[in-house]
Amino acid sequence: MSHDTSEAGWSPQGPVLELSDQASWDLLASKNFGHLALSNAVRPDIFPVNYYCDKETILFRTASGSKLHEITENIHVAFEVDAHTPDNVWSVVAQGLAAVLNGDHPVTAQALEALPDWVPVESFMYISIKPHTIRGRLFENHLKIGHA
Amino acid sequence: MSHDTSEAGWSPQGPVLELSDQASWDLLASKNFGHLALSNAVRPDIFPVNYYCDKETILFRTASGSKLHEITENIHVAFEVDAHTPDNVWSVVAQGLAAVLNGDHPVTAQALEALPDWVPVESFMYISIKPHTIRGRLFENHLKIGHA
Repeated sequence: MSHDTSEAGWSPQGPVLELSDQASWDLLASKNFGHLALSNAVRPDIFPVNYYCDKETILFRTASGSKLHEITENIHVAFEVDAHTPDNVWSVVAQGLAAVLNGDHPVTAQALEALPDWVPVESFMYISIKPHTIRGRLFENHLKIGHA
Repeated sequence: MSHDTSEAGWSPQGPVLELSDQASWDLLASKNFGHLALSNAVRPDIFPVNYYCDKETILFRTASGSKLHEITENIHVAFEVDAHTPDNVWSVVAQGLAAVLNGDHPVTAQALEALPDWVPVESFMYISIKPHTIRGRLFENHLKIGHA
């Protein structure tokens, strides 16, 4: 993992390092579970999703439910991924536009392999996010993880 | 942990159980690291935060930065907490209104104890969230965790 940092600062929890865009993308591409934030009529919502990240594009599946509905109402989304180690917590947030994939943008075999098995019970679609901004932060062992 | 469930369904990842409000609150109160979603001019954003939950109120600290700014622009927020076990993944999402705490609503000693140590470098405030809705879901071992 790259610890390339562009700026140091403080958070309410303690020291925080601002990561470079490349370090942030590398971290985002290293995981496959994240948090999707949508906003419908100024009311934000969050959904946990499995995703696949390749070439600075985030891909995930969604059932024909609230997530998809809210994305068609407002394509601006934020996507967050974090991980905890004994020494630190990192968090990467990407903001950008979501789009429903169609046949013109087929899902690659690599992405299909990375995403969880599909249970063929209801219809679903592939959504891509192309972020215009990415923000990565490393919290140095000051975010308490576990039970309060 | 309660597995009291009110409804069963399916997600793109596999079976999902809808948890009762009480089970959802119990899970939310059992952790102290979550994800805050804000929306400023219909653009959602996400922040990882340490929090304390008591009596169906979520409490956290924030520095005088972007989080606080966006909360004063739009007090509608969503707050998500999840955890992974070998058998399942659960996620609880609470939606409600955020407020900056003042002297009329002092922070309890128990909350101060639960929140991480403060490093006295910049100013901060306490924010409370009083959710009007809560949604808990249990994904039965179909969300892959780890590296893609």
